Amino acid sequence: MLDICLLGTSGMLPLPDRYLTALLLRYGGKKVLIDCGEGTQVTMKILGWGYKSIDIICITHYHGDHITGLAGLILTIGNSGRTEPLTIMGPPGLHKIVSGLLVICHDIPFKINLVELEMYKKTIQIDEFFITAIPLNHKVPCLGYSVEIKRNAKFLVEKAEKNNVPQVAWRYLQQGDTVQLDGQQYTPDMVLGDSRKGFKVSYITDTRPNEKIVEAVAQSDLFVCEGMYMDYSELEQVKKYKHMLGVEAAEMAKQACVKELWLTHFSPAVPTSSLDITNVKQIFENTQLGTDRKTCTLIYSDEES
Amino acid sequence: MLDICLLGTSGMLPLPDRYLTALLLRYGGKKVLIDCGEGTQVTMKILGWGYKSIDIICITHYHGDHITGLAGLILTIGNSGRTEPLTIMGPPGLHKIVSGLLVICHDIPFKINLVELEMYKKTIQIDEFFITAIPLNHKVPCLGYSVEIKRNAKFLVEKAEKNNVPQVAWRYLQQGDTVQLDGQQYTPDMVLGDSRKGFKVSYITDTRPNEKIVEAVAQSDLFVCEGMYMDYSELEQVKKYKHMLGVEAAEMAKQACVKELWLTHFSPAVPTSSLDITNVKQIFENTQLGTDRKTCTLIYSDEES
Repeated sequence: MLDICLLGTSGMLPLPDRYLTALLLRYGGKKVLIDCGEGTQVTMKILGWGYKSIDIICITHYHGDHITGLAGLILTIGNSGRTEPLTIMGPPGLHKIVSGLLVICHDIPFKINLVELEMYKKTIQIDEFFITAIPLNHKVPCLGYSVEIKRNAKFLVEKAEKNNVPQVAWRYLQQGDTVQLDGQQYTPDMVLGDSRKGFKVSYITDTRPNEKIVEAVAQSDLFVCEGMYMDYSELEQVKKYKHMLGVEAAEMAKQACVKELWLTHFSPAVPTSSLDITNVKQIFENTQLGTDRKTCTLIYSDEES
Repeated sequence: MLDICLLGTSGMLPLPDRYLTALLLRYGGKKVLIDCGEGTQVTMKILGWGYKSIDIICITHYHGDHITGLAGLILTIGNSGRTEPLTIMGPPGLHKIVSGLLVICHDIPFKINLVELEMYKKTIQIDEFFITAIPLNHKVPCLGYSVEIKRNAKFLVEKAEKNNVPQVAWRYLQQGDTVQLDGQQYTPDMVLGDSRKGFKVSYITDTRPNEKIVEAVAQSDLFVCEGMYMDYSELEQVKKYKHMLGVEAAEMAKQACVKELWLTHFSPAVPTSSLDITNVKQIFENTQLGTDRKTCTLIYSDEES
């Protein structure tokens, strides 16, 4: 199962009652954090999932509200006892930005691997996470991310027996390897059932909408997307600063056939009590208003109780 | 009058219910901020004194809990409409640290003057603020600060008349200048009364106590000082990390004859409900436990209502 927490919902500024937008994913004891603004380590403290097992940090872009918490978090992870390497990825400029911000971080007890991405769509596998960087359309180079967990096809004993596959080869075939044994070749399809859908979570913020984003986030189980303002009355405003409306996010969610949409990155000009997604839901019914530390767990449909 | 706000009381880490230790002073429409950790701009937002008129930022040292909020605050001050230069001062290394942290700050609409201090006691005047940097004894170069507002002696019309000082010279003499007029020299003491005490606020954190600190903070109206833990039972712990106990702060307060002591920079290991200053008050009665946004206003004794 994959645990997901929207750590905050603010855009531009951290507010007293609204942490900056960031997303945390937890799977098999490992974690991926997307974005790290000022205060992200504090909302993580309230959440209580711990700091030590943050393995990957994906940064969308280098505006302050998405990265000002990085140095503080790295120091806190350092104090948590982590010694395993940690990967930070982000758009062009990552090396310069991180070496600047971490000027105050000494004696960090783990290695930091920097993966400076180019501005094209690319998938990187780290452990069980398949992370796709998605070029966005903001005022500065900005990437969205889809994180996928693949799921192996089910091992079918009957199929293996029917195909006369020796038991000694089963383990390797289950892992996807081909086996040569006594002059005979055995392939994974001789023991495995149909491929099974894993999990896909997408995080898109600080961009105008476009077709390529729709394509990249297609079929997401959860689509976390910016709704700087909600309705078309603010279209000129978001166009000017290259942001997105909630209704535009809903249009993308509909086209991309995602299961569920969570809105986030709200303008500090809009108090929480005034956030209204009535019009958004008319476009995409399964929309939810993000709240700080809104959490869900994805489980495989055939494992549901 | 001088307004003072202790913006936060946490040491090492920002906590969900405790912002990092920082102090804000407001006098005559200008402000001095001492230290700027992650979240300092948020507690300032709750306080509501605004961002635009922050003229001076004094940094004690470059451990994360004292500086991780700098880039975010600079961006927020930039968005507040400030165009006047802003001064940042701190111990050796300031240029390198600030240019690192501000790698994400573009198009800031004001000039930043950096004052890199040496590790000796020195007073700098900026506007009405006389800021004295006080070398401390921490694991890295660290400075405390005393901020003083001087007060001119009172202009006495009777004294001026008695000394036959021409009216045309009064204004200059009141400002402290000497005047030559018709071959006669007039000096300020011919029109002014006795010198009057101004305000003095001192901020000392992340250090072992010593005599030189006592001397530097002597006669402070308010002494804001670290009490990482309160009692001597934790002496070995604070010695190891070069911090200070509340009871040690109280000893310094007593020796320095300050008017009032506020304790701050509490260990994250001690919950707020467990902070107990009973033993501290036995050493220095006028001790108060700092709380986030604890505020006071100093007024001249002869102006009290």
